[in-house]
Amino acid sequence: MIVAELSMITMGTGTSASRYVRAVHQVLKESGLKFVPGPMSTSIEAGSMKEIFEVVEKADAVLAGMGAGRIVTTIKIDHRLDKEISIETKMEAIRR
Amino acid sequence: MIVAELSMITMGTGTSASRYVRAVHQVLKESGLKFVPGPMSTSIEAGSMKEIFEVVEKADAVLAGMGAGRIVTTIKIDHRLDKEISIETKMEAIRR
Amino acid sequence: MIVAELSMITMGTGTSASRYVRAVHQVLKESGLKFVPGPMSTSIEAGSMKEIFEVVEKADAVLAGMGAGRIVTTIKIDHRLDKEISIETKMEAIRR
Amino acid sequence: MIVAELSMITMGTGTSASRYVRAVHQVLKESGLKFVPGPMSTSIEAGSMKEIFEVVEKADAVLAGMGAGRIVTTIKIDHRLDKEISIETKMEAIRR
Repeated sequence: MIVAELSMITMGTGTSASRYVRAVHQVLKESGLKFVPGPMSTSIEAGSMKEIFEVVEKADAVLAGMGAGRIVTTIKIDHRLDKEISIETKMEAIRR
Repeated sequence: MIVAELSMITMGTGTSASRYVRAVHQVLKESGLKFVPGPMSTSIEAGSMKEIFEVVEKADAVLAGMGAGRIVTTIKIDHRLDKEISIETKMEAIRR
Repeated sequence: MIVAELSMITMGTGTSASRYVRAVHQVLKESGLKFVPGPMSTSIEAGSMKEIFEVVEKADAVLAGMGAGRIVTTIKIDHRLDKEISIETKMEAIRR
Repeated sequence: MIVAELSMITMGTGTSASRYVRAVHQVLKESGLKFVPGPMSTSIEAGSMKEIFEVVEKADAVLAGMGAGRIVTTIKIDHRLDKEISIETKMEAIRR
């Protein structure tokens, strides 16, 4: 399992971003991937990097379709090879 | 109010980070700032950038004291001048 | 054209990262994409997000093959829809 | 020595960012810190985290003064405790 953090900022669309964030969440919902919205970014759990990247490409196309003139996307991916991780195991580890 | 997202990765300390993440949370707890741990980073709410930076400097010193040979810190700050924001108002806006 | 910034940190491999950064650069070289190494990350120019993502997946596999137990990848993508951009046009704009 | 990477995105100011990036560079110039502009962010070298943070606070105030309604700042800091680093030593290590 891979855990990632996604933020997509649209420029040229005013100071409010919530309409665009909700559109990205809609794409995530349709992807079937588990995701947890946060105040600064959205956490996503996936079986592979490819699944994350496919959903980001779709979200980018949706934001472009909404009229965004510039999209700044930040993806941070935690790929752990020595053990299985998930959003849940990561949250448990820091609560312990 | 300023909302920020903080991640501190220690290198030279193995693949597990949870001990260090919990130490950063302890510094945040002592600071009195509101914070919400997430699977990839911690969200923080503060009155000013300076408050965020002071807590990061303290956390860096704590991680150094724990023997970290290298600390890679990422801070993302949302400073909104056109309206008041908080972790709560940001979460509400994207849930709407 | 899309301009991106890539950083890949391996954990469980000591404090030195240069061997891994050079391996990522080798993958970039073989991809044919234009890239500019920097002190904190590598800038990449590509025709699409997909090209960036394919090279990141390859680099991740190479780092895994080198024995990295955990790989933390950060990709920041600037996708501008209102005009053509490149590493060169972006550097010119800020030098003006 | 600490090496950092800084990006400041203004929202509500259209799709072009170069005017704001140049203003941040002006603040860096006045600070006396060594910095290297890149296509996606600016690398900075400083003696301490505090020096980085002071310059970011000044840059934030300058962007606010230019009318930015929202400023999204990302700072990534490489603090190495096991040996001296600089922008130059980091660039040399990856070129080797």
